Amino acid sequence: MFESAELGQRIDKAAYDAEAPQLRAELLDLQYDLLTSRRFPVLILVNGLDGAGKGETVNLLNAWMDPRHIHTVGFGDPSDEERQRPTMWRYWRALPGKGRIGVFFGNWYAEPITGWVRKDLKREAAAHHLERILRFEKMLADEGALILKFWFHLSRDNQKRRLKTLAKDPKTAWRITEQDWWRFENYDRYHRMAEYVLRRTSTAQAPWVAVDGFDPRFRALTVGRLLAAAIRRRLAQPDTTLRIAAAPLLPVPSGANVLTALDLSRKLAKKSYASELARWQGRLNQLVRDERFAKRSLVLVFEGNDAAGKGGAIRRITGALDARSYRVVPIGAPTEEEREQPYLWRFWRHVPGHGRVTVFDRSWYGRVLVERIEGLCAEADWMRAYSEINDFEDQLVRHGAVVVKFWLSISKDEQYRRFKEREETRFKNFKITDEDWRNREKWDAYETAVCQMVDRTSTEVAPWTLVEAEDKNFARIKVLKTVVKRLEAALDDSAG
Amino acid sequence: MFESAELGQRIDKAAYDAEAPQLRAELLDLQYDLLTSRRFPVLILVNGLDGAGKGETVNLLNAWMDPRHIHTVGFGDPSDEERQRPTMWRYWRALPGKGRIGVFFGNWYAEPITGWVRKDLKREAAAHHLERILRFEKMLADEGALILKFWFHLSRDNQKRRLKTLAKDPKTAWRITEQDWWRFENYDRYHRMAEYVLRRTSTAQAPWVAVDGFDPRFRALTVGRLLAAAIRRRLAQPDTTLRIAAAPLLPVPSGANVLTALDLSRKLAKKSYASELARWQGRLNQLVRDERFAKRSLVLVFEGNDAAGKGGAIRRITGALDARSYRVVPIGAPTEEEREQPYLWRFWRHVPGHGRVTVFDRSWYGRVLVERIEGLCAEADWMRAYSEINDFEDQLVRHGAVVVKFWLSISKDEQYRRFKEREETRFKNFKITDEDWRNREKWDAYETAVCQMVDRTSTEVAPWTLVEAEDKNFARIKVLKTVVKRLEAALDDSAG
Repeated sequence: MFESAELGQRIDKAAYDAEAPQLRAELLDLQYDLLTSRRFPVLILVNGLDGAGKGETVNLLNAWMDPRHIHTVGFGDPSDEERQRPTMWRYWRALPGKGRIGVFFGNWYAEPITGWVRKDLKREAAAHHLERILRFEKMLADEGALILKFWFHLSRDNQKRRLKTLAKDPKTAWRITEQDWWRFENYDRYHRMAEYVLRRTSTAQAPWVAVDGFDPRFRALTVGRLLAAAIRRRLAQPDTTLRIAAAPLLPVPSGANVLTALDLSRKLAKKSYASELARWQGRLNQLVRDERFAKRSLVLVFEGNDAAGKGGAIRRITGALDARSYRVVPIGAPTEEEREQPYLWRFWRHVPGHGRVTVFDRSWYGRVLVERIEGLCAEADWMRAYSEINDFEDQLVRHGAVVVKFWLSISKDEQYRRFKEREETRFKNFKITDEDWRNREKWDAYETAVCQMVDRTSTEVAPWTLVEAEDKNFARIKVLKTVVKRLEAALDDSAG
Repeated sequence: MFESAELGQRIDKAAYDAEAPQLRAELLDLQYDLLTSRRFPVLILVNGLDGAGKGETVNLLNAWMDPRHIHTVGFGDPSDEERQRPTMWRYWRALPGKGRIGVFFGNWYAEPITGWVRKDLKREAAAHHLERILRFEKMLADEGALILKFWFHLSRDNQKRRLKTLAKDPKTAWRITEQDWWRFENYDRYHRMAEYVLRRTSTAQAPWVAVDGFDPRFRALTVGRLLAAAIRRRLAQPDTTLRIAAAPLLPVPSGANVLTALDLSRKLAKKSYASELARWQGRLNQLVRDERFAKRSLVLVFEGNDAAGKGGAIRRITGALDARSYRVVPIGAPTEEEREQPYLWRFWRHVPGHGRVTVFDRSWYGRVLVERIEGLCAEADWMRAYSEINDFEDQLVRHGAVVVKFWLSISKDEQYRRFKEREETRFKNFKITDEDWRNREKWDAYETAVCQMVDRTSTEVAPWTLVEAEDKNFARIKVLKTVVKRLEAALDDSAG
């Protein structure tokens, strides 16, 4: 894997001086073409051995190109806001928008590599990390990001030589710490782990390039050339990647499905409703104040037919909570900044910290529901969304969030009745639009999409709860009770 | 100040039941009108004594209205990201956008009041806080925010009664802590300070309302009625607040000004340039690595005539820095999310943390330059920007940032030469647009605006540096040298 990167490669000054100015002009040109096109972001990951010129190369790229449109981030220890959220949150918030270049040091590869070398992390746990990284990078690439991953390398002798040179020069001595020497002593372990990581995570969409870091001119040209070639090639390529999935998703031929299986006649009498409401709201209130919740969080997702009563159900939840502890996020059309980022970015921004509740009124499932049915995104895009969403929720849950997802289901007749009622009540007028009537015409398509969504995204860690919502009282209590039960189980679990 | 709020006011159940449902429906209606109009944000500040029903009232508002469009925030201890930035940063990042309602607990009044009662803060320091708050709220109001400030009050006897009741009931006992009793023992001190604060910070744009918090029905109707009335009135009012300032800003009649006073013939020979560049870049590099900088930050602002060489000067700065330590923020048209916030919001988001450098390529001064001259905002808006900007920079500096601002100045002839050169060089083509030629026609207007900007915003804490930029080498070294000198002085100062 590192054979040619340990040769001590060199470029002589004359050759470098003949090429560098041109390369630099080309990179700057490409950067502006990229910026003007606003077509995709470029993500450069910088990893490698100490003394192999990581920082120097990045500084050079910033000097060659226009640093105003490069976002270089060195990820050190996470801040407390970051520690309260899944590991990937800090990377999500730093992602460059379309047309921009992000350079990430100390990125998502730092933890598995350093953790394993320091023996904090077993190989299996590291493998699990890598698997998650692979899925994350696949998502980024599918969203259009151009990803370049550089591993700056040195042979053992050359690393020793470099560290000694840096330590001797008073101008650079500050850069060499005990840590660096410790890492050098573990050269073999680093080498082995890096070899494994590069092998496991080099993909066609995001390949690794090992760079011999010994000679500054050599590494500058290697990185510069590759970056220029990658951007040039990508700009020349039209945005017609594969737009369809391998096989279409068809409804089941029998007509029986999870929605038709619901017994919509379920009801709750008004009298029982009042006492049940008080009972479950009281329990929810207590759970959120439970000290065990201080290290957890709660993410609620509400989806459902139009007029199925999402808003009312949400208010029965929030009614049990202190307004300072929750946030309701209504999901509508994405903003300009959100459109320049991968699809899930706008949801990542609202991931709650410890001890907090976020309620999504509509959610990331829009991609496999309305966007799918209205043709707002390509088939290949909503098809991959199922696994991206599962990944996202898995990360939330692993980090301590309790994720509860509801589909509120009503019959077509009941929806008609509610639409009419809304049109006639001045007070509820704002709730009914032409779009609602249009969506209604696609009832069957939605039904199929919902069933497939449930099949593909109801997971052990974040299962769907289908709610018979023909009777509002019944639905509201079922929602409350489900939240309480799930939260209770999770807190008991974390205590045990 | 609190006379009627200590009467133990009450509303009987019948009167409440007759009014509440209507009020609730009206509030919900108004909330939707507000949301649809997207005209202004509503900011509700909640302060007051323990046990006076602050939390309960806010929960009620969230229950009455649609909680999806209310953002309730309880500000507790700042996070480490917040501690690294000026105090107001956390409030800026939580501001509701136009059409939304923000409810802020533990807001900017908490520190001066509690600090003084706890004797952490002298009255003079508290007064200084209040002055800053007044300016902040004035800015918010001028930007269109509807601000309501509630002080929930109780007489001494009633507070004692409330705390005892809450402590006795097992359902609410958890809410009463030692802290609450300590605060109750300091009732007089709280009372005195609150009186002072309310008196000093009640303005026509953001008046305080003291609410007798003893009876839940009374406080619910008081707050609900006022909120409804305020939103209703404001929605009915057209957006034609005062659009002009009291007196116009005229150029000085003599024609002599800070720009014409510059000696644009100043030059630096190529040979000296190379050695000077190395010298000042070296010093800058060392300063940013100085351990004293780990608790400071650096904010650089670049403004100047088109083609004056801002980009080149910036690259000479960044060339001295490690790419991980700085961020260059180019300022163009605001995004959708930025347009829904007060003008300075888009700059607050980029305020650097400790040990970091942010370079603004164009900046908040756009308001008093291009926006003023192109008529993109009303006269009254850019007129008030001078003091808002001074405030902003003052906060940065007080929190440890070094703010260095440059105006790069070239002659009209030199600009023409550079424009032509850019048009002819394919490589620099992207840098020249029709807009540049149009701006040039307004040379005199810009000159006046720049001089007035310098006069009004060159402060002791954040002075302007005017740079003779006819000769690029001279300009770049002057910029570098100025940054080094300012930073050096600041670090020496912080050590002393």
